[in-house]
Amino acid sequence: LAVYTDITEAELDPLLSSFGLGAALTLKGIAEGVENSNFFLETEAGRFILTLYERRVQEDDLPFFLDLMHWLAERGFPCPTPQADRNGQMLQRIRDKPAALVSFLNGVSVSRPTPRDCREAGGGLARLHLAGDGFQGRRENALGAHTWAALFRGQEASAERLQPGLAQAVAADLETLAAAWPTGLPSGVIHADFFPDNVFFVRGRFAAAIDFYFACNDALAYDVAVCLVSWCFDPDGQFKPDHARALLAGYEAVRPLQPAERQQMAVLAMGAAMRFFLTRLIDWTSTPAGALVKPKDPLEYAAKLAFFRNPAASAELGTLFHDA
Amino acid sequence: LAVYTDITEAELDPLLSSFGLGAALTLKGIAEGVENSNFFLETEAGRFILTLYERRVQEDDLPFFLDLMHWLAERGFPCPTPQADRNGQMLQRIRDKPAALVSFLNGVSVSRPTPRDCREAGGGLARLHLAGDGFQGRRENALGAHTWAALFRGQEASAERLQPGLAQAVAADLETLAAAWPTGLPSGVIHADFFPDNVFFVRGRFAAAIDFYFACNDALAYDVAVCLVSWCFDPDGQFKPDHARALLAGYEAVRPLQPAERQQMAVLAMGAAMRFFLTRLIDWTSTPAGALVKPKDPLEYAAKLAFFRNPAASAELGTLFHDA
Repeated sequence: LAVYTDITEAELDPLLSSFGLGAALTLKGIAEGVENSNFFLETEAGRFILTLYERRVQEDDLPFFLDLMHWLAERGFPCPTPQADRNGQMLQRIRDKPAALVSFLNGVSVSRPTPRDCREAGGGLARLHLAGDGFQGRRENALGAHTWAALFRGQEASAERLQPGLAQAVAADLETLAAAWPTGLPSGVIHADFFPDNVFFVRGRFAAAIDFYFACNDALAYDVAVCLVSWCFDPDGQFKPDHARALLAGYEAVRPLQPAERQQMAVLAMGAAMRFFLTRLIDWTSTPAGALVKPKDPLEYAAKLAFFRNPAASAELGTLFHDA
Repeated sequence: LAVYTDITEAELDPLLSSFGLGAALTLKGIAEGVENSNFFLETEAGRFILTLYERRVQEDDLPFFLDLMHWLAERGFPCPTPQADRNGQMLQRIRDKPAALVSFLNGVSVSRPTPRDCREAGGGLARLHLAGDGFQGRRENALGAHTWAALFRGQEASAERLQPGLAQAVAADLETLAAAWPTGLPSGVIHADFFPDNVFFVRGRFAAAIDFYFACNDALAYDVAVCLVSWCFDPDGQFKPDHARALLAGYEAVRPLQPAERQQMAVLAMGAAMRFFLTRLIDWTSTPAGALVKPKDPLEYAAKLAFFRNPAASAELGTLFHDA
């Protein structure tokens, strides 16, 4: 939630002219996206988001992300559409940083989703999965299941400091996940970060998804599991079955899950909780005090991990599918 | 340049309904204004800026600011227009903070003004002065000339740390200003912070002024002097006579200065440099390390103060009026 770089007329004017956008009507740094600088830019040609990629996003991955958004938008999925300049180039450079101009999308995110919002979000995710079918780009999930044990290495003491006993519990979970992680589920392009703040609504209906900078190839059902952990708990860590039921029903109304995907949903959700716990733990311990961006509390995801660790969670999840 | 508060649907929905704005199409925290939280809000009824007043702005002053913007906008001056809710109320409360909804204005600010920009800005300021004529609200300049000696008290050591000899020079300047400060100049509503980042352009023409939260009653020519110190120096502290000439000409094309205002312009500009030096010095010394908002360097204004301290500055300024 930060704007790191200011854009001046010396940077803006060449951009406007290479994209043929006419005069600038508005340029405002916006608090959207944690890792990048984002600007709302309106010109005589329309409304755009200008993104400067500040860090963490690997520059080599940018063509994958931009091509994917372009592919999805062409197939009618409401996501930011990268614009090409007069030379057909989407990827730009501003102040020696990679940059891109994408279409502006209407919508507001919800911070306290209702079951109805979850149903809409589930439907939106399924539309994304269908629209991604046939996309030829390839990107491994850089935060996928095979990376988690290595991510945790060296973090044991930090985990223990956060909550006594946590290091051992997480180590055991990592073994559980390594043993139980499913292979062979239907795979394709996933968003991998389909959190409430990346989903826009207008009048209560799914309107758009943004922030494709974790997108990759992985099991489609893992994307559903990411939604279960990010949309279906209340702020004090309580699982909300009505939310989960609505999310799954919304998803399956567009893309019905296969039996194997349903059976594996609990372990996938435990994995999703692990993935966000681990990156939050690392951000927590590596962020200097007083940094511009305040890291998110890893304990939120430690609690979700604990929920899915319990075998009762798997049984409960099984009852939430619409015809279960 | 910061967004301190997040707005959730629990805060937004009552606002939309009390203003009769329909559904939200966009809500984005924007990096505009240093002291307040600002959000770009678009609804089915139009585009707005939602401001939450975080600190420094005295709540008692808000009716003055809102009434003034309303007055100016009604007289055709392009400034944010406060919106009234269904009960005719402009001042709102969100999360127990004062808040207001104002119209959204097109335009982009310039970080490196050209003389042409200065001419436009000067004209815009003069339009503001004419539009303010007749406004009945009253607010003393809380950072006016009578406050500067008190503001500096206790800051001597900080000034000296910044630049050896600075404390003594500033003390002498304060005496000079107290002795020479003009009274009886034409007065009225002034913006008092008409810096480049508060002025919007579209296609190189003055389009709007924003951020009226220092506005007050004072000498109109002092507002021109604030522009001289904020628009007419290059980043390394060099006075730019072409910029100043253009600024004054642009102003006088709309509101010719009286002879007394011209004669006093150098001391007014020295005072303006003092005012911004002092508040930056105080922010500099009072901001904790690692704070979200990085304070601006007081030495920029110490250099401008030094420029106007030199009697040659007064002579040079005198040559810059269009018929001088």
